[in-house]
Amino acid sequence: MHVRFENREVPSGAAHDDEPGRSVRDTGEHALIDRIRQRLPPAPEWVRLGIGDDAAVLVPERNRLEVLTTDAFVEHVHFSWAVSSPSDVGFKALAVNLSDLAAMGAAPRAALLSLVLPGEMPLARLDGLLDGLLGLAAAHRLALVGGNISRSPGPLVLDLTVLGTVKPRRVLTRSGARPGDELYVSGWLGMAAAALDWHERRRSRTAAAEVGWPAELTQCIERWLRPEPRLHLGMQLGRNRAASACVDLSDGLSDGARQIARASDVGITIDASAVPVHEAARRWFESHETDPLARALVAGEDYELLFTVPRAIRRKQTLLQRLARDLPISRIGIVTAGRDVVLRHADRDEALPAGFTHF
Amino acid sequence: MHVRFENREVPSGAAHDDEPGRSVRDTGEHALIDRIRQRLPPAPEWVRLGIGDDAAVLVPERNRLEVLTTDAFVEHVHFSWAVSSPSDVGFKALAVNLSDLAAMGAAPRAALLSLVLPGEMPLARLDGLLDGLLGLAAAHRLALVGGNISRSPGPLVLDLTVLGTVKPRRVLTRSGARPGDELYVSGWLGMAAAALDWHERRRSRTAAAEVGWPAELTQCIERWLRPEPRLHLGMQLGRNRAASACVDLSDGLSDGARQIARASDVGITIDASAVPVHEAARRWFESHETDPLARALVAGEDYELLFTVPRAIRRKQTLLQRLARDLPISRIGIVTAGRDVVLRHADRDEALPAGFTHF
Repeated sequence: MHVRFENREVPSGAAHDDEPGRSVRDTGEHALIDRIRQRLPPAPEWVRLGIGDDAAVLVPERNRLEVLTTDAFVEHVHFSWAVSSPSDVGFKALAVNLSDLAAMGAAPRAALLSLVLPGEMPLARLDGLLDGLLGLAAAHRLALVGGNISRSPGPLVLDLTVLGTVKPRRVLTRSGARPGDELYVSGWLGMAAAALDWHERRRSRTAAAEVGWPAELTQCIERWLRPEPRLHLGMQLGRNRAASACVDLSDGLSDGARQIARASDVGITIDASAVPVHEAARRWFESHETDPLARALVAGEDYELLFTVPRAIRRKQTLLQRLARDLPISRIGIVTAGRDVVLRHADRDEALPAGFTHF
Repeated sequence: MHVRFENREVPSGAAHDDEPGRSVRDTGEHALIDRIRQRLPPAPEWVRLGIGDDAAVLVPERNRLEVLTTDAFVEHVHFSWAVSSPSDVGFKALAVNLSDLAAMGAAPRAALLSLVLPGEMPLARLDGLLDGLLGLAAAHRLALVGGNISRSPGPLVLDLTVLGTVKPRRVLTRSGARPGDELYVSGWLGMAAAALDWHERRRSRTAAAEVGWPAELTQCIERWLRPEPRLHLGMQLGRNRAASACVDLSDGLSDGARQIARASDVGITIDASAVPVHEAARRWFESHETDPLARALVAGEDYELLFTVPRAIRRKQTLLQRLARDLPISRIGIVTAGRDVVLRHADRDEALPAGFTHF
């Protein structure tokens, strides 16, 4: 009862939403698959068979390790139509997978898309999903090589599997941090937390009281809905052997620091004053009588990179800022010989809170 | 909001269902992931990083093409707890993916498991899923190298992605059939159709009237619930260059024949009297005044291999039977120069019916 992408020539050019009222159930499996294939650019030479047979056939890249990750993106759990456009959903479903590749220093290569579709989903929504997903794929030269469509009585699920490659000595892991290494984070934290907080406050009102985006949270909401994966930074850290350990912040800074500490068998001390909480997020939380730092530490979905830099590397900040281009890079702590994960305030130390909980 | 399998040593040995009343929601993400990892055998040497980092890291196999496929297995759509045990569900979710590898002539190598879990699912059910899935993986020396756990307000979804490898000249596709080639199919058809027919008749009764498996359908129901993927046959066909085209029968013989015909730009004529309908299925349908052949042609889920054998190969039946070991192999038709897909009866030809429809 599985629908596979079938064999056919792949024309270029976009599908048009010429049947705005139709649902995926009205459309039929073959038409849905054609709809996806018509959107794909020509496949690269190393794709021996793309969408069209029982499976995709790829020529592996020479002298590379392969990096594989999968993440599901579930309606009502990971996104809501009340705030995300279909294109946002397609974008983010792929972005969270690419963020995992970034954390490994890998370059994206190929993706498989498993779509679990509610029958009543409008066809225009499928087109929107593809807009966001294929736009991000094209920006990172990622080829969609296969997939699957299943129907479901439940929520929409986009399950992406992404394959990347990395030279053997350039792979980043969580386990290479050593005492004396410095801890860095890219970008600004708490943006997704502020956006989610706004979304939840808005949901708890009556429908009549619903309001649009507050202008001061626009940047935060945009980053929350469409987190740009830090692929360039991850690859640069790997190529320059500038990071001893790396993780992406899908589940919050606190969780990320604990992951590195546990995998590397080290401790970490984070300087509370150095954590780069985004200014708009800080103001949002302060105006709602919430501690911005506490929220930024435990909130998920920042999708920034948290990494440690070996002690031996000199002029770290200059090097890192060159590698990161326009993305800000902050030194926020130090790797220690113990196993404690500590938040250091001016006047006291405290244990880092636990990260985001999923169940 | 994604839960990743974390870094930790992987002990061998099975998890025990020591909390029979607990649900996955009560258990917490880390414990769920540990529960899976505790079940895994030691990873092979080419798995540089398995479950435990942001992504899995694999060393590709030299001089091989890579074959990638993904299939979702959705509660209420692809299986029902009324008839499948948790172990059956885990088995089949992987088997349908391995069947795709079989159709390409590929050897299984690695899998990623994306679990979308209803919060109220009992923990014992998760253990059962893993029993079936990991048992089949072990039988085919497939390594579970990564995955993802998401919660969901909807049905259970198991999304598997499987990676296989094949030597470049041994890959089987749908597009190599040539006029004059003979068409063969493995095993017996209609078994899944008969089992599904029994299941639907049973469901349409009142609960009080529900009955157990009819003894005469035991074989059919067992194959339906746990279809053994034809990996050995697929690899042997590729190694011996004995097949010019191949597809797995996930969506019925009629659909499979159309897929080969379309991809190869040929016609196919099937001899109605040669289609190997399973004896128990035949009797079941006849006793319910249904044409067994008509059902076997369009019913999905047989997961047998349908393949064409080049005209130049001599003593085909002897060769094929040797390659297939104990699995029966039937010659059921011929590839033609036209583009018609035809069912030939003793007294007339008819167009093959369309295959199983998914939406």
